[in-house]
Amino acid sequence: MSGPDLAIVGAGAFGTALACTLARSRSEPLVLYARNAAQVTDMRDTRVNARFLPGVVLSERIELRNDLTALGHASRILVAVPAQAQGEMIQTLRPHVGPECELVICAKGIERASHRFLSEVAAEAAPGLPISVLSGPGFAADMANGLPTAMTLASSDRARAEATAAALSGDTFRLYASGDVAGVEIGGALKNVLAIAAGIVDGAALGQSARAALIARGLAEMTRFAAAFGGKAETIAGLSGLGDLVLTATSDQSRNFRFGRAIGQGVPPKELSKPGQPLTEGAFTAAVACDLARRAGIELPIATAVSDVIEGRLTVGQATEDLMRRPLRNEDATFDQGPKT
Amino acid sequence: MSGPDLAIVGAGAFGTALACTLARSRSEPLVLYARNAAQVTDMRDTRVNARFLPGVVLSERIELRNDLTALGHASRILVAVPAQAQGEMIQTLRPHVGPECELVICAKGIERASHRFLSEVAAEAAPGLPISVLSGPGFAADMANGLPTAMTLASSDRARAEATAAALSGDTFRLYASGDVAGVEIGGALKNVLAIAAGIVDGAALGQSARAALIARGLAEMTRFAAAFGGKAETIAGLSGLGDLVLTATSDQSRNFRFGRAIGQGVPPKELSKPGQPLTEGAFTAAVACDLARRAGIELPIATAVSDVIEGRLTVGQATEDLMRRPLRNEDATFDQGPKT
Repeated sequence: MSGPDLAIVGAGAFGTALACTLARSRSEPLVLYARNAAQVTDMRDTRVNARFLPGVVLSERIELRNDLTALGHASRILVAVPAQAQGEMIQTLRPHVGPECELVICAKGIERASHRFLSEVAAEAAPGLPISVLSGPGFAADMANGLPTAMTLASSDRARAEATAAALSGDTFRLYASGDVAGVEIGGALKNVLAIAAGIVDGAALGQSARAALIARGLAEMTRFAAAFGGKAETIAGLSGLGDLVLTATSDQSRNFRFGRAIGQGVPPKELSKPGQPLTEGAFTAAVACDLARRAGIELPIATAVSDVIEGRLTVGQATEDLMRRPLRNEDATFDQGPKT
Repeated sequence: MSGPDLAIVGAGAFGTALACTLARSRSEPLVLYARNAAQVTDMRDTRVNARFLPGVVLSERIELRNDLTALGHASRILVAVPAQAQGEMIQTLRPHVGPECELVICAKGIERASHRFLSEVAAEAAPGLPISVLSGPGFAADMANGLPTAMTLASSDRARAEATAAALSGDTFRLYASGDVAGVEIGGALKNVLAIAAGIVDGAALGQSARAALIARGLAEMTRFAAAFGGKAETIAGLSGLGDLVLTATSDQSRNFRFGRAIGQGVPPKELSKPGQPLTEGAFTAAVACDLARRAGIELPIATAVSDVIEGRLTVGQATEDLMRRPLRNEDATFDQGPKT
C-alpha cells in the first residue's frame, strides 16, 4: 500500500494555502490533514475551506484527511498548526510517520509554556526526525491565489535545506535555502514585537517617516538579538527576517499590527488582553525577548518600550520620547554589541 | 558684522522642512536661502512656503534670504537643491563661504551628466571644504510638522559626522552618525530603483507578500552593490538604506513608486518618460547601476528587470516570471558575491 509522499498537517488559513500552492506545481496528490472531522467532511463536500480560506477552490490533488494513517508514506510533513499547539500535534503524529520523515515547521513564535523556539519543541516531541523551518513573508490569501511569494527554508543540514527548498518551490512559490535555523526562528518571533511597535506608530499618527525609521532600527535590534543567540545578520536581513517584518509592520492584515494600532489610538492595553481575547503573539514575545536580552547583556530599546507600554509601565507618548532621546550612537556601532558570527 | 552659523540652501519642500525642524531645536536664527527672489519675498510676507510646503508656518528664527552674503558666517550649510542642480549651486556659493564651512549634501542620486555621486560632485565644486551627507527616511511634511524622524549623517571624517549629527539633532529629529559615505549614497540612489519595482508589483496587483519579498531581495541587491563599491552592509541595513527603501517602496507619496505603479497598471513606460514629464530619478539610476554592476561582475536582477521594463525590452509579466524562476540560491550565499568589508 502506498500514499502521498507530501502532507500538510493543519487546515487553517496558512496550511490550506500551502496545500493549494504545492498542489499547483505537482502532478501527484498530497495530503491535507485536519484534526476536526466535521471540517474535513465539509471541505471534501464543497472543495472549499469555508472557515479559514473562503473563495479558494481546493485542487482535486489535495487529499483531505482526518486520519493520521494518511501520513504513513510522507517523506515530508509541513506542520502548520498554531505555535502553541505544535508540540502536542507532533507528539500525536509521531507514531504514524516513517523514521526518516522530515518535519517542516511552519508556525512562528516561542512556546509559552517552555519559552523555547518551535524547532526545539519539535525536536523533543519527535526525537530523531529531521526538522526544518519554513518562514518568511507570505499571506495565506496571496499564496492560495497564486500570487508570487518567496520564503526561506532552513535546516541545520544545509544539503537538506537545499533539497527541500527545491522540492517545494514552484512557479509562484520560491524558497531560498538557509542553514541558519536560529536566525530564521528569531526573525519570525521578533518581527511580531516590532509589528506591534509599528502599529503603535501608525495608531498614534506619528507618520510614515517614523514608521520607516522604526523598521530600520528594528532590524538592527533583531540583528543584535540574533547575534547573541547564534543567528546570522544575513538571515535577519533576508526574507524570514526583514521580509516578514516589512509585511507584518505595514499591513493591517497582521493581528500584531492591529493590536499595536489600537494601543496607539488610545485603547488601554489591558482591554486588548482581556480573558477571552486571543493573545497576541508579539505581546508575549516582547516580554520573553526582553528577559533573554537582559541576561545576554544586550539592549532592545524598541522591544522594551513595547513591553513597558503593554504592561502599563509607560505611555505611548513617553515611549516615543524615550526612543527619540536615547543617546545618539553611531549607526554601525549598534552592530558591534553582540559577537560577530 | 556677524550672521547665522547655520544655513540651508534651497527652499523646496525638503529644504524648508529642514529649516522648520532645525529652528525648532535652536534659539539662534538660521538662514534659508532661495535663488528665486519672488519666492523669498512671498515667504517673508506670508511666513509660509505656499508653493512647496503649504500649511506650515515658518518660525521667526528662519531668516529668508536671496543673497549669498547671508552664507558668509555659516559653519555648516545644508545643500538641499535638486540632485542635478547641486554642482552648479555649490560652484555659485563657494566664493561666499568661509574656508572651513561644512557642506551637508541633502539630495540623493547620481549626477546624470557625469554619472558621479553627489559627494564627489560637491568635492569637485568646492575643493577643500569638508563634505558630509544627510540621508534617510524623511518626508518633508512629517519633518515640518514635528513628527519623529531619524536619519543618517555620514562623513569620511568620523569625528565630524558625530559632531554634526549631534549639532543638528533635536527632540523630534534624530541623526545617527556614520563614517560610510559610499554606503549612504549608494542606498539613497538605489532605493529609488527598488521603489519603482515595488510600484510595479503594486500596480500589477501581485500582492503585499510579493512586495515584502521584493524589498528583502532588494536589500540583498543593494548590499551586494555597496560591497562592490566600498559601502558597508551595516549602512545599507540602516536608516539611509533600508529605512529609506521601506518608506519609498511602501508609500504613494514617492514619485518613483507612482512611476512604477503606473507601469504595473499597464501604462507604457515611454508615455511616462515623454519630453516635458519630470524624469524619474530611479529610472535613470537603474540604467547606470546596471552598467556599473556589469563592469564589477555582480548581478542586480531587480534593477536589471526595472531597466529592461522601462526600456521596453521586457513586459511586466515576463519580468515577474524571470525573477521568480531564477535558479534557486542560498539566501546567505547572495552576500558572498562581493568582497566583504
